[in-house]
Amino acid sequence: MSDQTTFSKPRYFEDFPVGRVFEFGSVVVTEREIVAYARQFDPQTMHTDPEAAAKGPTNGLIASGWHTISLMMRMYTDHYLPENGLPAPGVDEVRWHLPVRPGDTLSMRVTIQEARVSQSRPDRGVVRPLSEVLNQRGEVVLSMKPINLVRRRP
Amino acid sequence: MSDQTTFSKPRYFEDFPVGRVFEFGSVVVTEREIVAYARQFDPQTMHTDPEAAAKGPTNGLIASGWHTISLMMRMYTDHYLPENGLPAPGVDEVRWHLPVRPGDTLSMRVTIQEARVSQSRPDRGVVRPLSEVLNQRGEVVLSMKPINLVRRRP
Repeated sequence: MSDQTTFSKPRYFEDFPVGRVFEFGSVVVTEREIVAYARQFDPQTMHTDPEAAAKGPTNGLIASGWHTISLMMRMYTDHYLPENGLPAPGVDEVRWHLPVRPGDTLSMRVTIQEARVSQSRPDRGVVRPLSEVLNQRGEVVLSMKPINLVRRRP
Repeated sequence: MSDQTTFSKPRYFEDFPVGRVFEFGSVVVTEREIVAYARQFDPQTMHTDPEAAAKGPTNGLIASGWHTISLMMRMYTDHYLPENGLPAPGVDEVRWHLPVRPGDTLSMRVTIQEARVSQSRPDRGVVRPLSEVLNQRGEVVLSMKPINLVRRRP
């Protein structure tokens, strides 16, 4: 599923300064996986039926947007999230910019846009990156702005 | 996966006036499904290992937030989305309010907050609902504000 990371796995708030860029991950999207995810969670023909999708507005099979996000989450987990992570309260501005199709290779670019110590819980910080998923042509197919809670270094 | 719908399946922009509320869906979340999704896409111990999760900050196994959204998407597809739907450009303000645990029963409430005809494509409209996922106690566990493109009635 994943190849080498390109940075040491960060663990604490202090590892996420504003402006730092993390690039990581590599996952090939297969038609079988697109259809399997969609049959379970998003059974629209543009995601489940290559022949019908070829005649529709998407000009062929495309991955469910939530499948692309699920693949992003796997790259996050494999390469980016601290092992002592905390549940995230939310995500802003999810945008699907371009379709993801069978055979595409996805990777991640995460740019820290905001990092501040929590006022109510000074043992942790709030980190807000711009998280982008790119295809093999370097095009951004998906972007979002998660809200991450991260422990401060003891 | 789903029970009866509580409304006729809408098809066109005109079926989504501001203020209309749609309530639909019912899905039971099992431990097996929580672990299966998480092993594939979000292999953090709070989602994959009931014993380890019981000793951690989540006080037991909780569903990946993206698994909850995937289940929401299935209820959307089964009960809400027009068959002639268009890909959505994005979603704002995704918030995970409460954990989802094995045995929870989830359902949906969708409240139309904005509906306007597209200026660039007058054959379609932009519909912005508040989409909420509730548990069996009526508590909102997840909310988001999708951007939906919907064809106008011919």
